[in-house]
Amino acid sequence: MSGNTYGTLFKVTTFGESHGAALGAVVDGCPAGLEISVERIQQELNRRRPGASADGKLNASVTARKEADEVEVLSGIFEGKSEGTPIAMVIRNTSQKSKDYSNIKDTFRPGHADFTYDAKYGFRDYRGGGRSSGRETASRVAAGAIARILLEKAGIKVTAYTIRAAGIQCKTKDLSQIEKNSLRACDSEAALLMEEKIAEFRKAGDSAGGIVECIVQGVPGGLGDPVFDKLDAELAKAMLSIGAVKGIEFGSGFAAADSTGSKNNDAMRVEKDAGQNSGNSIQFETNNSGGILGGISNGNTIIFRIAVKPVPSIFKKQETVSKLSSEAGDAGSGFENSDLLIEGRHDICLCPRIVPVVEAMTCIVLADFYLRNKSSRV
Amino acid sequence: MSGNTYGTLFKVTTFGESHGAALGAVVDGCPAGLEISVERIQQELNRRRPGASADGKLNASVTARKEADEVEVLSGIFEGKSEGTPIAMVIRNTSQKSKDYSNIKDTFRPGHADFTYDAKYGFRDYRGGGRSSGRETASRVAAGAIARILLEKAGIKVTAYTIRAAGIQCKTKDLSQIEKNSLRACDSEAALLMEEKIAEFRKAGDSAGGIVECIVQGVPGGLGDPVFDKLDAELAKAMLSIGAVKGIEFGSGFAAADSTGSKNNDAMRVEKDAGQNSGNSIQFETNNSGGILGGISNGNTIIFRIAVKPVPSIFKKQETVSKLSSEAGDAGSGFENSDLLIEGRHDICLCPRIVPVVEAMTCIVLADFYLRNKSSRV
Amino acid sequence: MSGNTYGTLFKVTTFGESHGAALGAVVDGCPAGLEISVERIQQELNRRRPGASADGKLNASVTARKEADEVEVLSGIFEGKSEGTPIAMVIRNTSQKSKDYSNIKDTFRPGHADFTYDAKYGFRDYRGGGRSSGRETASRVAAGAIARILLEKAGIKVTAYTIRAAGIQCKTKDLSQIEKNSLRACDSEAALLMEEKIAEFRKAGDSAGGIVECIVQGVPGGLGDPVFDKLDAELAKAMLSIGAVKGIEFGSGFAAADSTGSKNNDAMRVEKDAGQNSGNSIQFETNNSGGILGGISNGNTIIFRIAVKPVPSIFKKQETVSKLSSEAGDAGSGFENSDLLIEGRHDICLCPRIVPVVEAMTCIVLADFYLRNKSSRV
Amino acid sequence: MSGNTYGTLFKVTTFGESHGAALGAVVDGCPAGLEISVERIQQELNRRRPGASADGKLNASVTARKEADEVEVLSGIFEGKSEGTPIAMVIRNTSQKSKDYSNIKDTFRPGHADFTYDAKYGFRDYRGGGRSSGRETASRVAAGAIARILLEKAGIKVTAYTIRAAGIQCKTKDLSQIEKNSLRACDSEAALLMEEKIAEFRKAGDSAGGIVECIVQGVPGGLGDPVFDKLDAELAKAMLSIGAVKGIEFGSGFAAADSTGSKNNDAMRVEKDAGQNSGNSIQFETNNSGGILGGISNGNTIIFRIAVKPVPSIFKKQETVSKLSSEAGDAGSGFENSDLLIEGRHDICLCPRIVPVVEAMTCIVLADFYLRNKSSRV
Repeated sequence: MSGNTYGTLFKVTTFGESHGAALGAVVDGCPAGLEISVERIQQELNRRRPGASADGKLNASVTARKEADEVEVLSGIFEGKSEGTPIAMVIRNTSQKSKDYSNIKDTFRPGHADFTYDAKYGFRDYRGGGRSSGRETASRVAAGAIARILLEKAGIKVTAYTIRAAGIQCKTKDLSQIEKNSLRACDSEAALLMEEKIAEFRKAGDSAGGIVECIVQGVPGGLGDPVFDKLDAELAKAMLSIGAVKGIEFGSGFAAADSTGSKNNDAMRVEKDAGQNSGNSIQFETNNSGGILGGISNGNTIIFRIAVKPVPSIFKKQETVSKLSSEAGDAGSGFENSDLLIEGRHDICLCPRIVPVVEAMTCIVLADFYLRNKSSRV
Repeated sequence: MSGNTYGTLFKVTTFGESHGAALGAVVDGCPAGLEISVERIQQELNRRRPGASADGKLNASVTARKEADEVEVLSGIFEGKSEGTPIAMVIRNTSQKSKDYSNIKDTFRPGHADFTYDAKYGFRDYRGGGRSSGRETASRVAAGAIARILLEKAGIKVTAYTIRAAGIQCKTKDLSQIEKNSLRACDSEAALLMEEKIAEFRKAGDSAGGIVECIVQGVPGGLGDPVFDKLDAELAKAMLSIGAVKGIEFGSGFAAADSTGSKNNDAMRVEKDAGQNSGNSIQFETNNSGGILGGISNGNTIIFRIAVKPVPSIFKKQETVSKLSSEAGDAGSGFENSDLLIEGRHDICLCPRIVPVVEAMTCIVLADFYLRNKSSRV
Repeated sequence: MSGNTYGTLFKVTTFGESHGAALGAVVDGCPAGLEISVERIQQELNRRRPGASADGKLNASVTARKEADEVEVLSGIFEGKSEGTPIAMVIRNTSQKSKDYSNIKDTFRPGHADFTYDAKYGFRDYRGGGRSSGRETASRVAAGAIARILLEKAGIKVTAYTIRAAGIQCKTKDLSQIEKNSLRACDSEAALLMEEKIAEFRKAGDSAGGIVECIVQGVPGGLGDPVFDKLDAELAKAMLSIGAVKGIEFGSGFAAADSTGSKNNDAMRVEKDAGQNSGNSIQFETNNSGGILGGISNGNTIIFRIAVKPVPSIFKKQETVSKLSSEAGDAGSGFENSDLLIEGRHDICLCPRIVPVVEAMTCIVLADFYLRNKSSRV
Repeated sequence: MSGNTYGTLFKVTTFGESHGAALGAVVDGCPAGLEISVERIQQELNRRRPGASADGKLNASVTARKEADEVEVLSGIFEGKSEGTPIAMVIRNTSQKSKDYSNIKDTFRPGHADFTYDAKYGFRDYRGGGRSSGRETASRVAAGAIARILLEKAGIKVTAYTIRAAGIQCKTKDLSQIEKNSLRACDSEAALLMEEKIAEFRKAGDSAGGIVECIVQGVPGGLGDPVFDKLDAELAKAMLSIGAVKGIEFGSGFAAADSTGSKNNDAMRVEKDAGQNSGNSIQFETNNSGGILGGISNGNTIIFRIAVKPVPSIFKKQETVSKLSSEAGDAGSGFENSDLLIEGRHDICLCPRIVPVVEAMTCIVLADFYLRNKSSRV
């Protein structure tokens, strides 16, 4: 399918199935001489682990699975610095026991990619979702860590957080709270309500969705390559490439549809304090554009939101369909109706775990444009 | 900036500024032997013209500019069939007169890409927006016509329409109405209300946004290449690459954020009439997924919506900034506050003109995946 | 077939059949602010015309066809400078008259791509070779002119010349002679002998091959991206993508096969005059590597040679095969033996006309690596 | 540098330094359902090991190093079949001991990429050549094994062999002899002479070059995508991307330069026995084209030769240059003349070890075009 590489200059290739030997990523195109510590990559991976906060503590309220995601760097870093050669990283799958998959081997879980993988390939890796598992995102987070280190040198900072989950909206936007609550919400009070709601969903065997917002600070004007590789277009691709994400909006987003030009245009003024001699001296009175105009960053904070669907693995009986023959490659065999009751332990709401993935993908996109922009002028 | 090519196998490269000599597209990778008539391409281009309905009549209510978009095919078609070689198409710019641009030459129009192009390149093509003009989309429509012809042979049908504009929502979804009203809305009654509203905006010197929905019928299961080149990810990129689009959502979209797994999962059943022996015999009880699961089409209708921002060119005085020096290449020169009053004639609401562009880009994305899918199995 | 785009950042897409409406190229990724004159592009195109020397005079000894290759720039250049947007160029086909192709419509010319295009697509554009015609290279020369202008700013100079033709080897390597003889040979005396030989071939209805050498001066060390996109690898691809080229060798090339490490290694010394403080201060005692080691330029002159096969269009009866049915799309129809006598006027030896094409492709490859190298280090 | 991925649909990304933790490859785009055994991949890797013949026995005459190249498949294969997802393979570096590199740490070995990597990145991985080591090719062989399995299903067979080494030319072309002599020559008698010559070179502390030929049998007509992605162009890129390769020629190659059209054109005849109803029924009387015309395979055997330079690591004192400062990132520091005597054990002639690499890269190129060709016609 060859859809596992992202980027033009900062190029990320990922691999790995949920229950295969390992997951991993190859980052090609990282400039030479960048100081990279494996600990830093590991730190990002720890954030992605089930129910983990930045301090590494597992939080039982949101998720239930335990995975040890230890990264090993196989190449590309020499004496603490990037060599300019591909940086390969591997994360072993350690917790995949010889589980019994017989109940889902031939049965397609609703809301999952079981049916579509089978439709595409004629069979599928039924062990925990194979490549369509959320576990795949560990590779993205590892690669994103490299991108983040590169961006930090350029003064660019990427932060994502839950702003809505289980129907509860954050009232305040306090970035200092993000890693202090199990939802990674930007409002700790709202987070408590979200946790309560999620506990109810768990009890009911159901699951919840939410909205994650991401901001990028310190982006210079000029990133993004029209007309197809617009900055917002690539961010949209990157976000929609994350499982469970069903939508994205930049700045005023869907609300812009009901707005007017006079309200939605961001007026510009010269910044008083900054002097009149740099591109950064311009201030936008509002940020309805989300920091991007014509597909190019305008120097303002980039802001977008993504819609996260409820976890499809629920503990209620569901109507679905089974494949009559389970022989690999037997495409075109018949189907029969079947009722499915999923077992095991699953996340209730993906938002907090998607936050580091959103950040990772945003870093990867920006790192690529940051490098691409080096040849925008003679 | 090299961001003007889209696609892996069905590869579209576009070029052209709003007021340069011409716009155009090169379609590389169209399979040989496809019957293509220039008239058909022209027909799609006619739909994109200001205020044009399918019958080619200009409608004064929505837009105001007149452009004759006549396409010339330079290569790739021989004796009525695609040769397998690049199909180059050119659309001359005929109406660009030596207009006076002095009032916007150094002044950045709010909500436009003027400032960001300048930030990226150090200067910009101030004649009507250059490459950031909506006129650029003519190239996309021409290329999309080729893609559409290819898809039609495969039984795939792409239809877009306005479902909301100027705050008015369509109540019914009647595809037969789309080309019968100036908004390309799927509800002709709602369209009348939209037209009234838009007339008010015109009088007030303001503009309106809206929402365009797109459905794709007849898509087989299996299109889309995870993990990065997911079908929804590529569609999101393609849509956000269209100017004025600020968001996209698939299926239940942002509403999924407030839903639960038990409600949002699409139950599956074997179709009674179809027999039990094909992938197409499976029916989804709902379509919250929008026809895509795990980044791969599931055989159901693909459905997504995009948010269209209000036209930024309004006829009210706006606060903005001017560049002190207009010398090309003089990046880093200072800025000063300035007030801008835009002149000329402009669209009030982009929805009806974006409809054929949305269809074109959707066709291009699907044509690419349709070809890519030919190598998904041994 | 989607093989008509070359490059990662400096991206060239070409189109056009020999006897279609036009040929052309789109150059995407040229940095903004580069001063480009259309005259300069035209000048390069004039060099490619049949029997043309740099002064534009047609020389009857080598070729026989007349083509006026007038370039029109459609986009991407504004007020004399590149805008950072795609530069589209079109060259109209003016001399394609309604010639009679009946004798080759169904008959495959030996040594031409007639048979392979038919094998691939099921039919072919029989008018003068379609896209497989040497005329296709006009697009490359136009695109190469842009690349050359970019490289000149960086002090990089590309020069190609015939060093062998019709069995005659140049004895001296005098670059000042190249444009002074009809062979574009680096030795004017040898050129006279070549011309004599070619006159004999013409009389005999036969054709001749040769070898073209190319040198690149002023290349800094560091260009080329291992492991697959090595500088020599990309140059090899670019050269072999030119019709009639059957081989390439760098530096000592095939002679290296019979050499030894002690003779073939290029010893290095610090340059006496240059001081000891720059990469350029290093001198290679020999240049068996051809200026490239490990796929990266070493700062020495890049040197390579290409083998040019004899023109396949000869005026002798040839044994070949005809397709029984000429209906387009009738793949799999039968064949019959047939004897072919090609008519019309054709080049006898391609070397002088390939020289500007070799330069153009070399410029394109180097321009791409020059831009790519901007992100090699943090 | 992001040059470590090859291919459009069958996409290979490699990574790994000579003395890092591991080498590896990710193959993305292998169609689902292909039966792949790890043993088969290992078998190919065994052929690449120093002095190994197909039977796995080490032969002391040509090379001297010992490496155990054990492959581990991390993903993409499930129940013995390709899943359609990326196939990641890792080969651990086991023999890299804490060797003393002090004599080459700051000194550039002539004929190696030491200087150019430093020129590009400002420092280099001095441990055994880092990524520029021949050891890098293990990744290619692993990826090539997957490609070969895919091609075998399509009846395509790739075979390479030494036809010249140390100045000795093979007189016969007996493919059955290739794996029976330490040179992988197609003439066992010539191989004996080569071995003698190589023994002499070893004694003298010198090294030898040679020529490797490759044939591809069973290729259907129609593979290759003009104009830039011609089959010969991509093969040329793939071959020149292998370290130590300095040239390539197809069919009559450089000899074509001295030939004439009447001799070099390959006459075509309908095959008597095959009937007249298929593309394969056509026979070429000669194969000066090397099986490729206009960049597309013609159904004849593909044949090309590559020039392999003598191993640059010799045991004679060499004149070279050292970097005055060894601090990483200290680009621009000065140089001084120095004399180098390389230690350790090294290959004398690369030909036999390059043979499996040539085959691997050829398989990768052909697998990609084989898949690309699936969309050449409607």
